[in-house]
Amino acid sequence: MTHLSFRGIFPPLPTSFDRDENLMPEKIRQNITQLSEYDLSGFLILGSNGEQVMLSESEKIEAIAAAREAIPPGKLLLAGTGCQSTRETIALTKAAAAEGADAVLVINPFYYKGSMNHEELVRHYYDVADASPVPVLVYNMPGNTGIDMTAAAIIDMASHPNIAGLKESGGNVVKMGEVLRNVKPEFRVLAGGAGFLLPALAMGASGGVLASANIAPQHCIDIYKAFTTGEADRARYLQQRIIPLNAAVTSKWGVPALKVAMDHVGLWGGHVRRPLLPCGDRLKQQVVDLLSDSELEIYNQPGE
Amino acid sequence: MTHLSFRGIFPPLPTSFDRDENLMPEKIRQNITQLSEYDLSGFLILGSNGEQVMLSESEKIEAIAAAREAIPPGKLLLAGTGCQSTRETIALTKAAAAEGADAVLVINPFYYKGSMNHEELVRHYYDVADASPVPVLVYNMPGNTGIDMTAAAIIDMASHPNIAGLKESGGNVVKMGEVLRNVKPEFRVLAGGAGFLLPALAMGASGGVLASANIAPQHCIDIYKAFTTGEADRARYLQQRIIPLNAAVTSKWGVPALKVAMDHVGLWGGHVRRPLLPCGDRLKQQVVDLLSDSELEIYNQPGE
Amino acid sequence: MTHLSFRGIFPPLPTSFDRDENLMPEKIRQNITQLSEYDLSGFLILGSNGEQVMLSESEKIEAIAAAREAIPPGKLLLAGTGCQSTRETIALTKAAAAEGADAVLVINPFYYKGSMNHEELVRHYYDVADASPVPVLVYNMPGNTGIDMTAAAIIDMASHPNIAGLKESGGNVVKMGEVLRNVKPEFRVLAGGAGFLLPALAMGASGGVLASANIAPQHCIDIYKAFTTGEADRARYLQQRIIPLNAAVTSKWGVPALKVAMDHVGLWGGHVRRPLLPCGDRLKQQVVDLLSDSELEIYNQPGE
Amino acid sequence: MTHLSFRGIFPPLPTSFDRDENLMPEKIRQNITQLSEYDLSGFLILGSNGEQVMLSESEKIEAIAAAREAIPPGKLLLAGTGCQSTRETIALTKAAAAEGADAVLVINPFYYKGSMNHEELVRHYYDVADASPVPVLVYNMPGNTGIDMTAAAIIDMASHPNIAGLKESGGNVVKMGEVLRNVKPEFRVLAGGAGFLLPALAMGASGGVLASANIAPQHCIDIYKAFTTGEADRARYLQQRIIPLNAAVTSKWGVPALKVAMDHVGLWGGHVRRPLLPCGDRLKQQVVDLLSDSELEIYNQPGE
Repeated sequence: MTHLSFRGIFPPLPTSFDRDENLMPEKIRQNITQLSEYDLSGFLILGSNGEQVMLSESEKIEAIAAAREAIPPGKLLLAGTGCQSTRETIALTKAAAAEGADAVLVINPFYYKGSMNHEELVRHYYDVADASPVPVLVYNMPGNTGIDMTAAAIIDMASHPNIAGLKESGGNVVKMGEVLRNVKPEFRVLAGGAGFLLPALAMGASGGVLASANIAPQHCIDIYKAFTTGEADRARYLQQRIIPLNAAVTSKWGVPALKVAMDHVGLWGGHVRRPLLPCGDRLKQQVVDLLSDSELEIYNQPGE
Repeated sequence: MTHLSFRGIFPPLPTSFDRDENLMPEKIRQNITQLSEYDLSGFLILGSNGEQVMLSESEKIEAIAAAREAIPPGKLLLAGTGCQSTRETIALTKAAAAEGADAVLVINPFYYKGSMNHEELVRHYYDVADASPVPVLVYNMPGNTGIDMTAAAIIDMASHPNIAGLKESGGNVVKMGEVLRNVKPEFRVLAGGAGFLLPALAMGASGGVLASANIAPQHCIDIYKAFTTGEADRARYLQQRIIPLNAAVTSKWGVPALKVAMDHVGLWGGHVRRPLLPCGDRLKQQVVDLLSDSELEIYNQPGE
Repeated sequence: MTHLSFRGIFPPLPTSFDRDENLMPEKIRQNITQLSEYDLSGFLILGSNGEQVMLSESEKIEAIAAAREAIPPGKLLLAGTGCQSTRETIALTKAAAAEGADAVLVINPFYYKGSMNHEELVRHYYDVADASPVPVLVYNMPGNTGIDMTAAAIIDMASHPNIAGLKESGGNVVKMGEVLRNVKPEFRVLAGGAGFLLPALAMGASGGVLASANIAPQHCIDIYKAFTTGEADRARYLQQRIIPLNAAVTSKWGVPALKVAMDHVGLWGGHVRRPLLPCGDRLKQQVVDLLSDSELEIYNQPGE
Repeated sequence: MTHLSFRGIFPPLPTSFDRDENLMPEKIRQNITQLSEYDLSGFLILGSNGEQVMLSESEKIEAIAAAREAIPPGKLLLAGTGCQSTRETIALTKAAAAEGADAVLVINPFYYKGSMNHEELVRHYYDVADASPVPVLVYNMPGNTGIDMTAAAIIDMASHPNIAGLKESGGNVVKMGEVLRNVKPEFRVLAGGAGFLLPALAMGASGGVLASANIAPQHCIDIYKAFTTGEADRARYLQQRIIPLNAAVTSKWGVPALKVAMDHVGLWGGHVRRPLLPCGDRLKQQVVDLLSDSELEIYNQPGE
């Protein structure tokens, strides 16, 4: 599995719906095609930005299949396959692999918070990794799950040969360092938010899965490149500039704002699925205002 | 809808699995039959104790159908039908009603915590209540969802004619009072935990959906009756005694401990579905020790 | 010590300041004299509402002395003497007793949250109780301290002969029951907020130390009396009605709102000490509106 | 004020007590003298590690005076002067300046959490900065205070000409970037924990006030230097190595462990003040084991 390079920048693509909240696989393909003009390392389908928890099982498969068709050679397809039960996670993982996912990103089960102790969590990831035909990336997302997996748990998970890395969305850079100091050298940590991409890279992360990469792909790539080439000042400058836009489309206003931003830059954002509600006019304007910051390098439609 | 009486004690039945984690509808029926010898007001199927989030859609329907067969006349079947998307919640609600559920208990969507503001939550419940053929009970369970719905949100929900009540599992008795002072008189609040049943009743609640009612049904019923007949000292005594057992099978050790307790008293607890893990021997013994407290009135097998 | 009766209703008196934030002992006396016309069991000086943490040591003594002068026979003087160090807590406790405090209310040290484990907390209370000439009441106030002492810790503290009770301000009625089931019979639990007075009484509490008792003393006393005489409906009705006012002067707007309310009903609220800021006009009006609820029995100036 | 250079590494010195918990100013001086052999930028007296909240006002002055005597020219004396009231904070700030403090570090008031909104916090810092003869550094320490001041609040504070910087101990590197992008160029951000020193520097911080700098000063300095000279790999290596020791003497075991470590390396740790309790033997050994990690460069007693 270690031939896969979990390095660089991956957008976690939103899932496209029409006004009746039905899946639009063609828009998933279109977004991927447009974004593939950038030097992105691949795409995450069915992450938190992909409204995975709102899709039926067949919709999940359909979305993965659509992505596979559109992703060009040399870029990876990561699929979010974590469910509340181990058995359902394994079933979806196998199905995703069968559709061509290069790796799966598995969020921890989180409903039974009081019971999700070290042992339950490690056992779950081991069971999934045993059954998975493709490498497994652990996905820690405390803002949505209410569980912040410890460094100790992740270090234990990393000892499984089929567990290849971690997407850490909690922004805890200390934990990233603690993990990296204790795991196999090929284990990869990916920042789960553009707001802390550069600090994560400084601590040893290999890249990021970043909502902002859907709308400002080059800006994210430039942070990564400036870091790897030792341009500390430029990296810091770019990093500080991405923070407000990133906050807007993640912790502050979430997926509805991300879709507004994608619509605005010439990609396909479209509708959200309820209980999420579309942004009102005032909020839309705030998102658009953030995008017009001349110091941000946002997605640029071909021909514009 | 107001002919339904959401008063008294309801056990939230665990879902029965065999050692391979497969559904055992016959054990659901058997537990209901055994527990129906008590003066319970009905049963909740597919609550948090029912591992609802771990069941496939077809399993959910099968569990509800099994319960319907076994529940005797005069007792209500409440079905937990809340999912992460409004559309899926509506679909399951309709299916549950078609299987004979008398009412549905709808937990709030919770994955997109940052977006689940007042408006999204109220709109979600309105959409579900509009579509539901049976009364809807709002289910607040912050320990599992990480969201504690406000009194203001619940008061707004209560203005819908098809929203009949609230199961409050957070133990916030102040909120119960604030809700009850502001809603239609027929709106019912049910305590979601035996640890605070009596305080909730004092504040105006009508009963409880109590994990402990699966293993100590008479004890829970006696608290309710002692309160309604004005026996304050006896109510307080019984209330204080149920606290350790209730904590053990809920916040402390959860569903695995509840199943151990059911096995021990002569009901069918059986296996849990992973990532939940069965209790180890030491923990099992602690649960059994709690059950042997002579001051607790636990389930008593017929013929014993 | 057990001759002291920690039963009934105690107002936690705010500390009076002039516009330059200087202590006004005469206003402390005046408020006590006016409120003593009600059937209150005593007064707490230097609680959270008393801005204790903002007073110098000499001001603390002066405030206690002023209260002692004004409190009529038959009513208790409780003094808040908890500080961050054990030694300072002991010194203030002795000084309070020397000024005539009947008992001290000791909030737990809370700055070193990560170190305030079971052992540190129990040892602290034991050391204070060993040194105190008067009974010690444990004070749990998680909203301000960020620490919610466990039932287990409080039960251990209660085994000290000079630790006489608990003021529980977190509203956790389950904890109250767990404590009461495990401590000496003369140990008293006092509700720390009027929002949950009745549920606490149902669980076994003996009364309350209630910010609302500064402005609606008779209303609080009536809840207590209705409970003790078995008038469950009247108790519930009164309990539900006090909730909004109580929230306004505690969790919602705090001490500044409490002082506005006292000014409005004819007591002496006066100024707050910075960083607290006085209520603006709009907020003042909201407080006044709450006080004009005809179903609330607020403080009634003699001769009005 | 901007002639002061808030750059580089500052140890937040513990306050020295004898076995009866009495202040030992001579040990404060001795520790400073020994640590001054390293290229540290100065010392913080009366920070969280200095048990400031446990000292009487006269002890605080005495500790600052002792430090001033011992700190050699070219190194700064920062004094922690934040108290719960604005007036007490101002008084202590003036006293600290009179004793020779070069700047004061002011933790936010935190007891009235519910009232410490944007306006109260900004006003407090403005009032203190107006009155302070020396520059003020804002101190955010959510782990102890339970309040995490927002970027927006800190940005507003930074507009005051006498507010010179921020010590951020929450580890939120995104907030550091958001602050730095919006404040005057001479505003300095200092990392409040060695666990995230390098990520903070990458984001634009100027140095750190680090508990670990009391026991591993050269290691901390080396991280700072490796960053400033562009040695990313070495910086990352050193950063990852300091994490366990730093966690041990801060979030995990706190001041008692820090004092054990100082004793072990040849400085003067000594006793803690209750309610803090000394480390037991087993914990002491764990601290010592961490110090013996050969990859850590710990304090090295002269002549050893």
